[in-house]
Amino acid sequence: MPILLQIDFPFQGPWGAEMSATMQGLAESIAQEPGLIWKIWTENPETSEAGGIYLFKDRPSAEAYLAMHTERLVGFGIPHVNAKLFEVNRELSAIDRAPLGG
Amino acid sequence: MPILLQIDFPFQGPWGAEMSATMQGLAESIAQEPGLIWKIWTENPETSEAGGIYLFKDRPSAEAYLAMHTERLVGFGIPHVNAKLFEVNRELSAIDRAPLGG
Repeated sequence: MPILLQIDFPFQGPWGAEMSATMQGLAESIAQEPGLIWKIWTENPETSEAGGIYLFKDRPSAEAYLAMHTERLVGFGIPHVNAKLFEVNRELSAIDRAPLGG
Repeated sequence: MPILLQIDFPFQGPWGAEMSATMQGLAESIAQEPGLIWKIWTENPETSEAGGIYLFKDRPSAEAYLAMHTERLVGFGIPHVNAKLFEVNRELSAIDRAPLGG
């Protein structure tokens, strides 16, 4: 069963193209994480927040990633990480064109 | 520019297949919302939370939906709605196989 991981945290930039350049290597590393189907990178300069929405193949891979990534964010100086794990309702999501495929 | 809307709130069920049956009409209605690319329906019986991750074509459509949907959730008796709007970093998301297409 796919598991959705929702993460956001206070962030002071860089934003946009500069964020892309700074974090390209991290994104390439995340692409190799076991069980990851996809990640959407989120950013909001107005509220000084960033984060990610992840879809994992199963709960163990999502929980293992969350533990590792939270420690990594703390290492980056992020003071507080909001994280929530959810099951995905496949039937309702399918009606709304949700991209759950591998 | 696509805008990601992240919503979660306290929820007491129904869950899973029963949730699907109860909310099928709502999902069909949401599929018609202006500017919606997709919605993923999220649920967590362990924490008594549910919500959705939405991708919209632009900020005005995301903001209009959020205002309408928050009012609707309050009408359902949901006491508190957590909602955050984010821009999507396309370059980093593309590296991580994110499904941003229309």
